[in-house]
Amino acid sequence: MAGIFSVYFSPHKQLYQSLKNILGFYPQNISLYLLAFRHRSAGSDNKENHPINNERLEYLGDAVLGAVVAHYLFKTFPYKDEGFLTKMRSRIVSRVQLNQVARKIGLDELINASLSNKAKFGSITGDAFEALIGAIYLDKGYKEASGFIINRIIKLHLNIDDIENKETDFKSRLIEWSQKEKQELVFEILEEPSHENNMQYKIGVMVNGVEKGRAINFSKKKAEQIAAEAACNLLQL
Amino acid sequence: MAGIFSVYFSPHKQLYQSLKNILGFYPQNISLYLLAFRHRSAGSDNKENHPINNERLEYLGDAVLGAVVAHYLFKTFPYKDEGFLTKMRSRIVSRVQLNQVARKIGLDELINASLSNKAKFGSITGDAFEALIGAIYLDKGYKEASGFIINRIIKLHLNIDDIENKETDFKSRLIEWSQKEKQELVFEILEEPSHENNMQYKIGVMVNGVEKGRAINFSKKKAEQIAAEAACNLLQL
Repeated sequence: MAGIFSVYFSPHKQLYQSLKNILGFYPQNISLYLLAFRHRSAGSDNKENHPINNERLEYLGDAVLGAVVAHYLFKTFPYKDEGFLTKMRSRIVSRVQLNQVARKIGLDELINASLSNKAKFGSITGDAFEALIGAIYLDKGYKEASGFIINRIIKLHLNIDDIENKETDFKSRLIEWSQKEKQELVFEILEEPSHENNMQYKIGVMVNGVEKGRAINFSKKKAEQIAAEAACNLLQL
Repeated sequence: MAGIFSVYFSPHKQLYQSLKNILGFYPQNISLYLLAFRHRSAGSDNKENHPINNERLEYLGDAVLGAVVAHYLFKTFPYKDEGFLTKMRSRIVSRVQLNQVARKIGLDELINASLSNKAKFGSITGDAFEALIGAIYLDKGYKEASGFIINRIIKLHLNIDDIENKETDFKSRLIEWSQKEKQELVFEILEEPSHENNMQYKIGVMVNGVEKGRAINFSKKKAEQIAAEAACNLLQL
């Protein structure tokens, strides 16, 4: 544990206190956390021209988060197969989810003040969240990082039931919309698997005869989903 | 540590000994390891119709392996950026690499004996390797799993330099082959981004006028690489 003295006499006293509130403990090596909140857009390289930013910590934190969430889901759903666990994990660690969580715990306030407000509200907060996990892992080890993720993030800020029931079926979403809005919707097969050099489906999503998305995939179902996702994005559904 | 008595009087004495040789320690909860080597093709569900196989452990082990390798690379390459670290990790944990490692440490001998020899030499060994890591993690914790991966796998069986220099540029490989074999090779743009519904490149790889691979991607370079990879596979390069 960092001596309480080092906190009181540190130029980063405020950061120590904010981190204590977020993490539940005082950080040991404050420089790791300072790095975690330094986004690449903040600039400044060191003498040897190595960029000093949080991207390496983000890479590490992403991996640690993946393992912790995998273990949490493994324990929470003892009878679910790995397909379900994989799907749930990708939803939990999605950029959208991480950005939300990061803002809920107040990370946006800690991110390098030199950044414009606009930048703060991009996925920078989610990046910083992953980098924070990398920092905790290096500072305190796997157990402490795992405790933070499970007790302070998942249990406090995520609703696992909601995540489980979240609609990610874009085709259904599109069909529902078209019926409600009385739009003509057609999933058109633009190309079918024919010979050895073309083994994929090309699907176009046509709304009132106008293509709103297309995709190619070995699986027809997947091609439809991807094309539908593109159309949902375009139509802002 | 598992009491030496439980090893001597166990019906799985042989497995205990094999695992001791592979892991460097006696397993505590042998049932986890028995499960790790039970591939889905071995069949047999429990009473409630829940499949009993190693897929959930494989899912967990994959995540733990990802975190441990991420940390190892983070420490080993202090001045490399996250792009390099990501690339290196995906090479280390590739199916091909894991299958090789699994066979080197003798895992194929431990995989459920009911499997045919043919099945053993698929990616089942790599799957079992990941499941083994999941078992170690649950049995002994993150530190022990990390020690096994770094000291018994990476340091003993992987050549990080070789992995770093491995050729994965399929376009270059194809060009080299075409020059050596005097084949006419053309990367043909079949479709270019035109309007909002088609923002991707479609690239075909033509060898002597015959298409050997094609791909679609927002990036022309990526489409070329994917199409080249398909062609390399088809031509068995």
